[in-house]
Amino acid sequence: MKKVGVAILGLGVVGGGTYKILTEKRDFYKKNHGVDIIVESVLELRKERALALGIDEQKIASNIAEVCSNPEVDIVVEVMGGVDPAKKYVLAALNAGKSVVTSNKELFCKYSHELEKAAKKNNCGLFFEASCVGGVPVIRSLLDNLQGNKITSLLGIINGTTNYILTKMSDGGASYEDVLKEAQSLGYAEANPTADVEGYDAAYKLSILSSLAFHTKIPFEKIYREGITAIDSLDISYGKRLGYTLKLIALGKNTENGIEVRVHPAFIKNSHPLASVNDSYNAVFITGDCVEDVMLYGRGAGALPTGSAIVGDIIYCATHDNFNYSAFKNTPNADPDTKFVSNFKSAYYIRLVARDKAGVLSKVSAVLGKNSISLSQVIQENAEEENGGVPLVLVSHETSEKHILKAVEEINAIDKFAKVQSVIRVVT
Amino acid sequence: MKKVGVAILGLGVVGGGTYKILTEKRDFYKKNHGVDIIVESVLELRKERALALGIDEQKIASNIAEVCSNPEVDIVVEVMGGVDPAKKYVLAALNAGKSVVTSNKELFCKYSHELEKAAKKNNCGLFFEASCVGGVPVIRSLLDNLQGNKITSLLGIINGTTNYILTKMSDGGASYEDVLKEAQSLGYAEANPTADVEGYDAAYKLSILSSLAFHTKIPFEKIYREGITAIDSLDISYGKRLGYTLKLIALGKNTENGIEVRVHPAFIKNSHPLASVNDSYNAVFITGDCVEDVMLYGRGAGALPTGSAIVGDIIYCATHDNFNYSAFKNTPNADPDTKFVSNFKSAYYIRLVARDKAGVLSKVSAVLGKNSISLSQVIQENAEEENGGVPLVLVSHETSEKHILKAVEEINAIDKFAKVQSVIRVVT
Repeated sequence: MKKVGVAILGLGVVGGGTYKILTEKRDFYKKNHGVDIIVESVLELRKERALALGIDEQKIASNIAEVCSNPEVDIVVEVMGGVDPAKKYVLAALNAGKSVVTSNKELFCKYSHELEKAAKKNNCGLFFEASCVGGVPVIRSLLDNLQGNKITSLLGIINGTTNYILTKMSDGGASYEDVLKEAQSLGYAEANPTADVEGYDAAYKLSILSSLAFHTKIPFEKIYREGITAIDSLDISYGKRLGYTLKLIALGKNTENGIEVRVHPAFIKNSHPLASVNDSYNAVFITGDCVEDVMLYGRGAGALPTGSAIVGDIIYCATHDNFNYSAFKNTPNADPDTKFVSNFKSAYYIRLVARDKAGVLSKVSAVLGKNSISLSQVIQENAEEENGGVPLVLVSHETSEKHILKAVEEINAIDKFAKVQSVIRVVT
Repeated sequence: MKKVGVAILGLGVVGGGTYKILTEKRDFYKKNHGVDIIVESVLELRKERALALGIDEQKIASNIAEVCSNPEVDIVVEVMGGVDPAKKYVLAALNAGKSVVTSNKELFCKYSHELEKAAKKNNCGLFFEASCVGGVPVIRSLLDNLQGNKITSLLGIINGTTNYILTKMSDGGASYEDVLKEAQSLGYAEANPTADVEGYDAAYKLSILSSLAFHTKIPFEKIYREGITAIDSLDISYGKRLGYTLKLIALGKNTENGIEVRVHPAFIKNSHPLASVNDSYNAVFITGDCVEDVMLYGRGAGALPTGSAIVGDIIYCATHDNFNYSAFKNTPNADPDTKFVSNFKSAYYIRLVARDKAGVLSKVSAVLGKNSISLSQVIQENAEEENGGVPLVLVSHETSEKHILKAVEEINAIDKFAKVQSVIRVVT
């Protein structure tokens, strides 16, 4: 039986999960694929992690050179995260003729062109299904299944931590800070949650997914990014009354005007399949000119779901002899021909507090009208509720972001009149 | 640029859609994949179909031998449906060294072992993503992405026609017969709807999907099959009141007791993601021991969505040199080691009409209790509503099918007492 040796770089949550799957299911893979996949080496600075998993001391490498020169290693699994030293290690592995399976979205987002070049040069496989949306089969669906399509849009909930936080805020009305603390204590958010809550993680993934979907490099820097730290649970509850659920969305659009890529909180209509993607579940909703709508849903993170994606890639790599690479010109920067849309259009939710009820709606409507903004929904409360002012909640029809920002500025500028508390985009 | 010639066998809805996609997007594929995919030949008895699509008369083959001996043809797309003559044609193509892409679920379900053998012998590709669930990327997800998992269950809504009919019955309360007629006039159901409404189509697909998921051949004959022709819209509305949606489900389970495969109408809890899969949309909900839950959702049929799957396979085939085959022992019959569960367990919805209200619930409960069946939900109406009798609707906890059938028999046997009108399984 063909033997395939694997090295795992990093034994954190995902690396440990991958090790467990590979060792516990070795016979299952032998039976189903006729290939014996053996973990031959691990590289982990915290040696106790390796020992706790029951790994033979002789299999614990002390540096990357040892992994690369090990003739028993065919596939290197990189699950360390971050660019440094992951990039150096992955390039070393590829240049040593090892195929690479990675879950590293930041590395792949920023340096896929360098990794791919090294993989091609050395006839190695380079697999990254686990870099985006955990166990959800979205990379291979884009790379293989959906290639018949011009993909026109891609709308995803692709970060588990923020979706958990927003779901809890929506369920219980608790504040962002309280839910974040709870999520941290449960291990759903990291001690330093910036990468998740500020939308970096989602933007890395969107860069990868939209590059594949739109057949051109979409660099991270081109993605408009806004996190969830400023979300007030009051807006979530007003949104509920209007029929919306608040999500951190990753949106890519490929229109005649150009490509639009953005990560930010947004209200989604409750009737949209993405609105009921809760907790740490993730989903990507893809629209193509042939396939129409496709949605892929599942666990976006976690040791075993992400391990499932990694092991799927390992088995594919172990049972294939020739490897293919991205179906686009994988360059560091966007193609000069690619146009990006910055003044995008959306519907908007606006909440303001007015000092006095008299004439609020008419004054606000006048400002909006002047800026070519029309309304689809309004909530005006009878009581004086907040900060001694009268709350007014509006949802606009689709308009351009520029118009909204100008209108908000104008409303805030009316002397002693009203203050806009929140502006949240609405996916229509 | 590499040229790849395609022949299309059958220019019906899907064949015509595939032709249109390939010709209209030829430049798009050249640009993205560096390969020029050209329709070199079509085989269609109704020549006017080919002419209506604007196909050159010289490209219209008059028999399969002509297609097989055409040196310009590399890939044969079979979209004729049915076993005869599709099987003969596909085998001829493979034996002539052409790779095959098929959307034919009946053919692949019944003869995948023969087709695969011919493909292997001739080093040809054999692709069948389009055979199951249209544009939804379920075959490749099972074959590649999810191989790290022992898949424990697969629950799908995988027939568009029946899902359209049940959605309309649920929305408007119309009868099965009326909605079927409407669906036929709109082209959503065929003039002879048997394959869809009796569950054959779903069972072919379930055979293919569960064979891949469970790594062993699941023959069509092993699938319990029941259609939707006896569904009364009264039950759909009682189900709604209890929090359920009626769907034609395809269920595969791989448990310690063996494999369970069945296609039948079932109530699904409204909170389950499959309950909101409506109209001609389809979805497959897959549970694996690593990935947990994954759901793949999209258009299960139609010229362009199915064409998307076919063209995805064509591009894959055109850009790969080595081909892999099923990750299981692809035999005509089930492996002798495979155990099948026939007396499966489920929760059950039971509607009966009693002649008299007095003591109905206690008498029925006594019969159920004797058969080890306990109840989770009951609706007993005050008024005498139906057929001059009193309706009683019950939902049981999980129990075995044998117990339910015996209890129903016993209730019906009580002299002049009550008659069970419907028994519908409930997915818990």
